[in-house]
Amino acid sequence: MSQVLVASNRGPASFSLSEDGALTMRRGGGGLVSGLAGVTGAPREPSAGGPDVLWVCASLSEADRVAARRSPDGRIDLGGHETGGAAVRMLDIPEATFHRAYNAVANSTLWFVHHLLYDTPRSPHFDARARRDWQSYEAYNAAFADALARDAAPGAKAAIQDYHLSLAPRMLRERRPDLRIVHFSHTPWAPPEYYALLPDDIGTQILLGILGADHAGFLTERWASAFLDCCELLPGARVDRAARTVTCDGHVTHVGVHGLGIDAEALRRRAAEPDVVERARALREQVGDRQLIVRIDRTELSKNIVRGLAAYRELLVNHPEWRGRVVHLAFAYPSRYDLPEYREYTAAVQRTARQITEEFGTPDWDPLILQVNDDYPRSLAAYGLADVLLVNPIRDGMNLVAKEGPVLSERGCALVLSREAGAAAELSEDALMVNPYDVSQTAETLHKALLMPPAQRRERCARLAAAATALPPQRWFADQLAALD
Amino acid sequence: MSQVLVASNRGPASFSLSEDGALTMRRGGGGLVSGLAGVTGAPREPSAGGPDVLWVCASLSEADRVAARRSPDGRIDLGGHETGGAAVRMLDIPEATFHRAYNAVANSTLWFVHHLLYDTPRSPHFDARARRDWQSYEAYNAAFADALARDAAPGAKAAIQDYHLSLAPRMLRERRPDLRIVHFSHTPWAPPEYYALLPDDIGTQILLGILGADHAGFLTERWASAFLDCCELLPGARVDRAARTVTCDGHVTHVGVHGLGIDAEALRRRAAEPDVVERARALREQVGDRQLIVRIDRTELSKNIVRGLAAYRELLVNHPEWRGRVVHLAFAYPSRYDLPEYREYTAAVQRTARQITEEFGTPDWDPLILQVNDDYPRSLAAYGLADVLLVNPIRDGMNLVAKEGPVLSERGCALVLSREAGAAAELSEDALMVNPYDVSQTAETLHKALLMPPAQRRERCARLAAAATALPPQRWFADQLAALD
Repeated sequence: MSQVLVASNRGPASFSLSEDGALTMRRGGGGLVSGLAGVTGAPREPSAGGPDVLWVCASLSEADRVAARRSPDGRIDLGGHETGGAAVRMLDIPEATFHRAYNAVANSTLWFVHHLLYDTPRSPHFDARARRDWQSYEAYNAAFADALARDAAPGAKAAIQDYHLSLAPRMLRERRPDLRIVHFSHTPWAPPEYYALLPDDIGTQILLGILGADHAGFLTERWASAFLDCCELLPGARVDRAARTVTCDGHVTHVGVHGLGIDAEALRRRAAEPDVVERARALREQVGDRQLIVRIDRTELSKNIVRGLAAYRELLVNHPEWRGRVVHLAFAYPSRYDLPEYREYTAAVQRTARQITEEFGTPDWDPLILQVNDDYPRSLAAYGLADVLLVNPIRDGMNLVAKEGPVLSERGCALVLSREAGAAAELSEDALMVNPYDVSQTAETLHKALLMPPAQRRERCARLAAAATALPPQRWFADQLAALD
Repeated sequence: MSQVLVASNRGPASFSLSEDGALTMRRGGGGLVSGLAGVTGAPREPSAGGPDVLWVCASLSEADRVAARRSPDGRIDLGGHETGGAAVRMLDIPEATFHRAYNAVANSTLWFVHHLLYDTPRSPHFDARARRDWQSYEAYNAAFADALARDAAPGAKAAIQDYHLSLAPRMLRERRPDLRIVHFSHTPWAPPEYYALLPDDIGTQILLGILGADHAGFLTERWASAFLDCCELLPGARVDRAARTVTCDGHVTHVGVHGLGIDAEALRRRAAEPDVVERARALREQVGDRQLIVRIDRTELSKNIVRGLAAYRELLVNHPEWRGRVVHLAFAYPSRYDLPEYREYTAAVQRTARQITEEFGTPDWDPLILQVNDDYPRSLAAYGLADVLLVNPIRDGMNLVAKEGPVLSERGCALVLSREAGAAAELSEDALMVNPYDVSQTAETLHKALLMPPAQRRERCARLAAAATALPPQRWFADQLAALD
């Protein structure tokens, strides 16, 4: 198999530095790491000629930079089974450049566009400062393209990930026309009328950037189709909807859909570990024999936590029979706290939760448990115990919570799912679907979910789990690479 | 000609009540009133059998209600040339119902959806209260349908206006299948992914409501097309894009485009009156021999005044040669001040204006004149004097400022126009087009507009004026009625 290069903002490992200067490596998880293991197979010995996989990512801390400097040729061998013996190259991107590219452009602009998050009368506001931020985004993408171009063996495959790196495919093709390039979008894609919020030159460059790849992958048909809609408005591009190709400057890009599901075996193995079992015991004690509604999200503007809590409140108002008989466990982990919108949103979540507790709480009953500290084993424990899982994003590339929950559910949970999540494409038959802006409908759907007969719940949950595991990360990643052949 | 019924929230006249109980009628203007005059021709004598036109509207004040009660049969004869002898029926809608239908649903929901104005992570928030508001909107529409059904002669034509009355066409058809009904949307129409923010039942009812008409009119091809896109997702509806029809429940609705332009003669006549001449003199004195950039808007979230001011600021930063040589006259008239978002937006406009004055103003030069009091003759005077007219809405059904300006311009103004205004469809060749979210591009375009050679400016302005007057209101309204034959 030819060499495979992976490029993403966050890499498969991170480092910490102790006071005596020793480096500790912490390997990360996630679909991409699992996917890679499927491609590379068993771990390799460095002596066997070095890894076939090189992962290029950004240094996210001073320790990452030290690790990169200390490694021969700047390549760090990861070892271990999960990454199949890949090496990683951590790019040392100047802090100001990184901050503008990552926070100002990727997370505050492109993320907002694709998730329809803007408060349009006020933002976006593309002024001189936004233009400077954009130049940093170009420099950040160029740094990746340079590294990939330098490290790639002739004819290698490069898998470039997500909205942080939308310009890199074209930049890499310009530098190394011999490579085969795939770009994968983990986000939704904006409809053309919303994509048009971007300045013309920026919107055009992003499309041209991705069209530098031979294959552009999306999580669902819906996002792929929106991408093609935007390409149809791009001067000089020719879209063939039937063949699902875009031809631009004589180069053909295939557009493909690659759903991302759960590695059931790995997830179940992790959930069987003692830390999860211990947390499940504690949760069971806390909840007692009440029904349990669970939600698990980063505190992300797109996750719609405030409306979800409001729906729970409306449930308790309209159906007082549930008071004392249900508990809502809401995990809202910190996210992007360096962006003011996210700090405000976190405060709104906490305020809404407090109001519910004050309005309905009794000495014997906590209607709502809001947890804001990240605790992965506790999340896994909650999946196991949930009677109802609420996943109501206003827009979401896929949403893996909706897939993990049914896989780990012990009694068979009912899934209340937003139609705006990519996962809806695969799960809508057995989930109870909601419009995420419709708080009343969400409240009524929670009521229905709580009333669902246990046998029906178990059957639906089993089908949801089957759908959720139909496309494990190994297959997802292998499919993208195969599309390049 | 058969009887014509017109229905709109605001009617062609309003009343005031003096302390001694005497009523004074004030006739309004606007495209619809002009359009009506074109249809009815010369004023008619009541003795000649009564008017052929009945205009149904809401009572907007206590005086309106008194006027309706004092009139025989509740019909008020308007008299006068402008309305061609129409009578008006002012509906007495309970205040709470009106408030919810008008403010909560029409102006805070439907307006927001069609103009893409929502701050999506926070609003809309369709809870129990929104459902109660919706019931008021239904009641408000039913009141119109009842009145129209009662007053219509057999086979009469009914012209129902705008987003306040999207349910009325279907309600009227149910009550009076013998009538011929047209609905006209003066707003943009949302793309399907944004229209889907509405609760399913509400979104469906609005489409079905309009599809109760025989003909659904829009201001541009773009909004008509977006409406058809939404209808394609409506269960049970069949869209024929070529014929531009929607068939639903066995009933066929034709979808048509009817651009709305300026009645040049009437506008020029008004602009020649002494109050306009006097204001032009005062403005000329204030501005001196500097170039003048004019904008005229209601302080409406969609009008994008803050970004427009920011663009002017960026012009002064990037091209300091204009300091002291240009004045920006920004008219921002009060609008919807009972909605908190509008009060906040008004404050933001004033804050931004103050910052510009403080940053650049000198004892000899006011860079910016912000006027917040409605003064129609002053607006007309400003049109006459403008070197550059800035019209940069984030989304707009048509925008008549962009059409009035070139018609009244004395020296030939350059028009800087948002591509998101409906007027762009007719004016984009001779206007300088901008993306309304792109402040930097808007600043550069203002610079280009200021530098445009006078001869080119005059030529373009003449063509803009010709395009702006190609579809006068008389023709616009007659076309809609003709589409019913």
